[in-house]
Amino acid sequence: MASLPESLTELIHRLSRLPGIGPRAAERLALAVIDKNPTEISALAHALNEAVARVTHCPVCGCLSQDGAECRTCQDGSRDNGLICVVESPLDAIALEKGGGFHGLYHVLGGAISPLSGVLPEDLRIRELLARVASGSVRELILAMNASPEGEATALYIRQELDEQHEALTSEAQKAGAEAPQRVRTTRLARGLPSGSQLDYADAATLQSALDNRTEM
Amino acid sequence: MASLPESLTELIHRLSRLPGIGPRAAERLALAVIDKNPTEISALAHALNEAVARVTHCPVCGCLSQDGAECRTCQDGSRDNGLICVVESPLDAIALEKGGGFHGLYHVLGGAISPLSGVLPEDLRIRELLARVASGSVRELILAMNASPEGEATALYIRQELDEQHEALTSEAQKAGAEAPQRVRTTRLARGLPSGSQLDYADAATLQSALDNRTEM
Repeated sequence: MASLPESLTELIHRLSRLPGIGPRAAERLALAVIDKNPTEISALAHALNEAVARVTHCPVCGCLSQDGAECRTCQDGSRDNGLICVVESPLDAIALEKGGGFHGLYHVLGGAISPLSGVLPEDLRIRELLARVASGSVRELILAMNASPEGEATALYIRQELDEQHEALTSEAQKAGAEAPQRVRTTRLARGLPSGSQLDYADAATLQSALDNRTEM
Repeated sequence: MASLPESLTELIHRLSRLPGIGPRAAERLALAVIDKNPTEISALAHALNEAVARVTHCPVCGCLSQDGAECRTCQDGSRDNGLICVVESPLDAIALEKGGGFHGLYHVLGGAISPLSGVLPEDLRIRELLARVASGSVRELILAMNASPEGEATALYIRQELDEQHEALTSEAQKAGAEAPQRVRTTRLARGLPSGSQLDYADAATLQSALDNRTEM
């Protein structure tokens, strides 16, 4: 578009680098932007800078928080701190929060084990998870990984590490003549038909888990 | 979303006010933004401020330009300045430029006459158009309004005003004993079937104009 002013071409270029915004959408957005109230646009520019500068990860659970503080879930005293839902990314925690049915805390791993993509267990926040469990207040871990091979492998790996840590803590306690620590319950999300879905559109693996996990009615 | 940091909520709110971006898309964009390189985002914020501050309208034709200068089309000495395409908005000129087949200049009216929406002839840049025509260099005006009742009415109004101006200029010339000025040719865009369209999906008005304006082959 040789006929557009440079500052507009630059804005279109910048917008089109955002995910999900193609060149056409970027052009339409840019043209809409220059028709908007200038104060509104400078507020948007300010919000962009603010978000990038101030959004951080919660030092406890790894969810999104602000200015390095603990996230709102961790700060909320009314939540059950004995129940921790382990997820791959902060977005998973946001999705679960929208449901509003979970009242425990979260632990964000920052991905799933995938040696082919170069993601090894030590790249994830698994050590931090084991430390939270070792501190003794955790009753149950819900391993809410994605229903993918990587998610599956990560859940199994965490399960193993928890067993090893439990054995080590138990033998330590025995040596010291103290009571053995309680084993932490680990669960995972149910597999089955998604709500509102049609049986004949479900894939074979989903149908098989729906059959395997059938419940009494 | 009580669980999101404030600066992120603010960004989502600001993004969702852009046209064509709903609350879901705004959330997805905002979460993508905070995962991006901070320098990239501050460049986007800068581009937003720059575009709003620097994009202006060309003083000659009303197309988009920068810092109050003439637009690139008007500055381009290789364009035919005897041929002016009259459009409702700068976006129409951009659409025509994309085709690359028009080598004249533009004149942006800034809308179409629509008394019901409170847009009267004096709200449009019609006086400026008549002045350009009166200056004598214009050979042909293409009235490229939208194919809507408002566009139609605007084209007819401009046609009338041109006739009146021509009469006034002719009688002035006669009084002064000079040669009468040439009448400016006015044309409008062809009506017919859009390229690549199917006959049975065309509406009745389109089919009628395609019939009326049929050409020899």
